[in-house]
Amino acid sequence: VIYVDGQPANSLPIDDRGLNYGDGLFETVALRQGEPQHWDLHYARLVDGAARLGIDCPASALLRQDVAAALPSPAPSRLVAKIILTRGSGGRGYAPPVPSHPRRIVRLSAWPEWPQSHVGEGIPLSLCATPLGRNPVLAGLKHLNRLEQVLASRELAAVGAVEGLMFDDLARLIEGTRTNVFLVAGRELLTPRLDQCGIAGVMRTIVMDLARSLSLHVTETRVERSLLYSANELFVCNSLIGIWPAREILSPIGRSFSSMPVTRRLMLELAARDLAP
Amino acid sequence: VIYVDGQPANSLPIDDRGLNYGDGLFETVALRQGEPQHWDLHYARLVDGAARLGIDCPASALLRQDVAAALPSPAPSRLVAKIILTRGSGGRGYAPPVPSHPRRIVRLSAWPEWPQSHVGEGIPLSLCATPLGRNPVLAGLKHLNRLEQVLASRELAAVGAVEGLMFDDLARLIEGTRTNVFLVAGRELLTPRLDQCGIAGVMRTIVMDLARSLSLHVTETRVERSLLYSANELFVCNSLIGIWPAREILSPIGRSFSSMPVTRRLMLELAARDLAP
Repeated sequence: VIYVDGQPANSLPIDDRGLNYGDGLFETVALRQGEPQHWDLHYARLVDGAARLGIDCPASALLRQDVAAALPSPAPSRLVAKIILTRGSGGRGYAPPVPSHPRRIVRLSAWPEWPQSHVGEGIPLSLCATPLGRNPVLAGLKHLNRLEQVLASRELAAVGAVEGLMFDDLARLIEGTRTNVFLVAGRELLTPRLDQCGIAGVMRTIVMDLARSLSLHVTETRVERSLLYSANELFVCNSLIGIWPAREILSPIGRSFSSMPVTRRLMLELAARDLAP
Repeated sequence: VIYVDGQPANSLPIDDRGLNYGDGLFETVALRQGEPQHWDLHYARLVDGAARLGIDCPASALLRQDVAAALPSPAPSRLVAKIILTRGSGGRGYAPPVPSHPRRIVRLSAWPEWPQSHVGEGIPLSLCATPLGRNPVLAGLKHLNRLEQVLASRELAAVGAVEGLMFDDLARLIEGTRTNVFLVAGRELLTPRLDQCGIAGVMRTIVMDLARSLSLHVTETRVERSLLYSANELFVCNSLIGIWPAREILSPIGRSFSSMPVTRRLMLELAARDLAP
């Protein structure tokens, strides 16, 4: 089911700047009984991204209305809502028309089914060869320029990885192809700083807040590749999967994780506080 | 006039990966009497880009057929053809479906009219604050991830510039927002290397070949920002404008160019050899 600017639609004008330049943003939101989870965090990120790109952000109520309109009746217990905000139609040329008329796209899709073992035993992770370019102007945003993630994703199947770790040109760990990453090192929870590249995930924020409420020490920091050898635990997270522990980091790191007490505790608390998708 | 996969269309499916991830490439081609100019160079770049992204590139004849089908009759003497090649439709998630079915979009638009003074007197150029991220995997490609150019273009109007120069995070000159850049320094013609970022323009290739045929020494090199102070001449180029000399580099460089013998010679030869758009 797709709605464009509040109306059912299956297509969009070819002059849309989202297509032509990736000139827009998106949010992937878990719906439970039709209700967007962690909506305030998703919307706050969209507002921030729109401000940084100079796109007028629609009101929260309007976007929620779009989602509600697109919902089948009765609503399945779980759905995924992908909300795309583009700068709208524009002529040839990079410079945005003034004024621009942003376009809202809401696309609902079935809840993905993953093997239960991803949660129970954890997942194998690979190291992606595709690097992330650094650009502070775009860092943190969930914008539509995602070729790096597309190319990195193509690397996974061949090596049998469920998720891949991505690094910047300085060999610093930044994120997974579709997840944020946390490491447990000593008594600390570490996650890469996202001021140069990477997407600041909603579940990342939730996990950081949760961990701090459990008196864990959480640090956003530069994560050198060498930490992948020494970390006690590693997990990835996003708004649809919640948390998946790493069971193994494949070649060339080649190590496995047997027990993961901190990750397990965070997963339990996430569920107990009804913060998991 | 828009054709999608050889058929008239004004819209495209919302699950197209060009919209969702910028997962595709484009070419902007000058048409003269309906005939694509420098087609071999455009098509070669598209083939190269498609190979690097893992997208099946349509045959040259098929794309030319799309352009021919979209042409009004009689064809205006000049038109712009924008050819977009996306990876086609795909599900939610960055990983491309296997197999993917690439989508071809051809959009014809009127020939842009620029002030004659851009050619006659040259243009004022600004320095863009928006940096270019470096990523060798994407460098040189004319892909659909163009937010950097969009943001840089938004800087121009406020400072009265016709084009803006863009730099990487190491303060090296890379390109204009929609052009490639050449500098005349001593007896050499210099243009930035594009192995880390930037788009390898068709007119850039033509200008390099032309200059060499005139026994000018042409070097693709790292161009430090300081060269903007010492260069004797500077010009920008692309497939639609041909060559525009810089009349002035605005603050904080703040300098003007009065005579530009090498640039003028290249412009004359470009026209004389029927290589100009």
